[in-house]
Amino acid sequence: MIELSLIGIGTGNPDHVTREGIHAMNAADLILIPLKGEEKSDLAGLRHEICRSCVTNPATRIEGFDLPVRDPGTPDYLQRVGDWHDRIAEVWQQAILAHLARGGGPRVAFLVWGDPSVYDSTLRIAARLRQGMELELRVLPGITAIQALCAAHAIPLNDLAAPVLVTTGRRLRAEGWPEGADTAVVLLDNGCAFEVLDPAGIEIWWGAYVGMRQQVLVAGALAETAEEIRQTRARARAAQGWIMDIYLMRRRPAVTGA
Amino acid sequence: MIELSLIGIGTGNPDHVTREGIHAMNAADLILIPLKGEEKSDLAGLRHEICRSCVTNPATRIEGFDLPVRDPGTPDYLQRVGDWHDRIAEVWQQAILAHLARGGGPRVAFLVWGDPSVYDSTLRIAARLRQGMELELRVLPGITAIQALCAAHAIPLNDLAAPVLVTTGRRLRAEGWPEGADTAVVLLDNGCAFEVLDPAGIEIWWGAYVGMRQQVLVAGALAETAEEIRQTRARARAAQGWIMDIYLMRRRPAVTGA
Repeated sequence: MIELSLIGIGTGNPDHVTREGIHAMNAADLILIPLKGEEKSDLAGLRHEICRSCVTNPATRIEGFDLPVRDPGTPDYLQRVGDWHDRIAEVWQQAILAHLARGGGPRVAFLVWGDPSVYDSTLRIAARLRQGMELELRVLPGITAIQALCAAHAIPLNDLAAPVLVTTGRRLRAEGWPEGADTAVVLLDNGCAFEVLDPAGIEIWWGAYVGMRQQVLVAGALAETAEEIRQTRARARAAQGWIMDIYLMRRRPAVTGA
Repeated sequence: MIELSLIGIGTGNPDHVTREGIHAMNAADLILIPLKGEEKSDLAGLRHEICRSCVTNPATRIEGFDLPVRDPGTPDYLQRVGDWHDRIAEVWQQAILAHLARGGGPRVAFLVWGDPSVYDSTLRIAARLRQGMELELRVLPGITAIQALCAAHAIPLNDLAAPVLVTTGRRLRAEGWPEGADTAVVLLDNGCAFEVLDPAGIEIWWGAYVGMRQQVLVAGALAETAEEIRQTRARARAAQGWIMDIYLMRRRPAVTGA
């Protein structure tokens, strides 16, 4: 029986780690860290930095593994991601079985950016693993980019007692302002999907690399800041070689109306 | 100039505290803790336990203050909450000015359940304080009940690349299943608002006291678990004298359809 811990480690600020996360890392017999395939090399380095600064138990083994890459030949998005998760689960399984064959203990941990439950696939991959081995699964929450964004701007996620919709750039681009809420948080946007919206009456709080040393923030009326965000995003991406960004928008229906 | 830190401390599990939160507590000259007015006495005790276990700097002063109570005579909900926040801001201001008058340093911290940005009013109260004193505001995110619920059930918040709506019991009761998403998280529900929904095709993951020692969980098809949740909630509330619960529901439109 494998005891698998998925440990949320926050958004790249090593101090986002919780006490619970630190205890779980030090209770693990094996911590598996993806090596290649994580193209954002800053993130790979950070994951090791977090591991080094948290793990004090000499019996905890830290091991890298090569993360497979997605097959760009699969046209359908969900299918492409599903196939990729299948292959990652195989790699996990091989690494865990090799560790056990060497006489390693049953407590295995993965460090997950953000929170394992929030727009992350680690739980979906672990479910595949369950089909091949007996698992006891433990999830340890971590600080998400949504929270790091709100903290950086020192804003509430929600208006008082009002709903919030969390969605993706892909959806926003396809469907426009989502129904159901006047506050929308947009994740997984590969480039300024807010440009499809009529900006009148919308405020935006944007951030890239939220919580990290490179953090960049822009906020204001969407009509006045959209171009600044576009340019800031392009410059940051060129300088760092990669970007992860997120934004929160609020619309004021009274103002939006004609 | 007051440096005000709002420190998210998670949902009652002392190990939800982040390293950043521990650093900020120990960097504070004054930590203000609400004493009376926090009716849930388990929570008041827990807040002190967290403080004791995190604060090692002898120069950090920990002080209680009496939290005002809401005026039940104000019929309008938003007005009632707004007035209450005004009075809390006055109490904060008095406590901070008294501390400064005694020669105390400018770094003041509040410990906030969950995350200061997520369905919490501390930022709205701090904004009122800003009108009366010069403030530099710092927000430190913490684990929310949404995350503690998903972690306890070991489930993802979202379906793959799909949106999530976070809403309140009051809204769910008034408006039924919210538009915009097939996953809904319901907070601030004073009692089983899900009963207004046609349960066909809806799955629910419910939890009370999530992350705490008293944690209770129920999950399953809403049609089959609604009564169990109602009874479990009533029993737990009677036993503890208070309850805080939260739930996530997913509907499968293909199943819901006639």
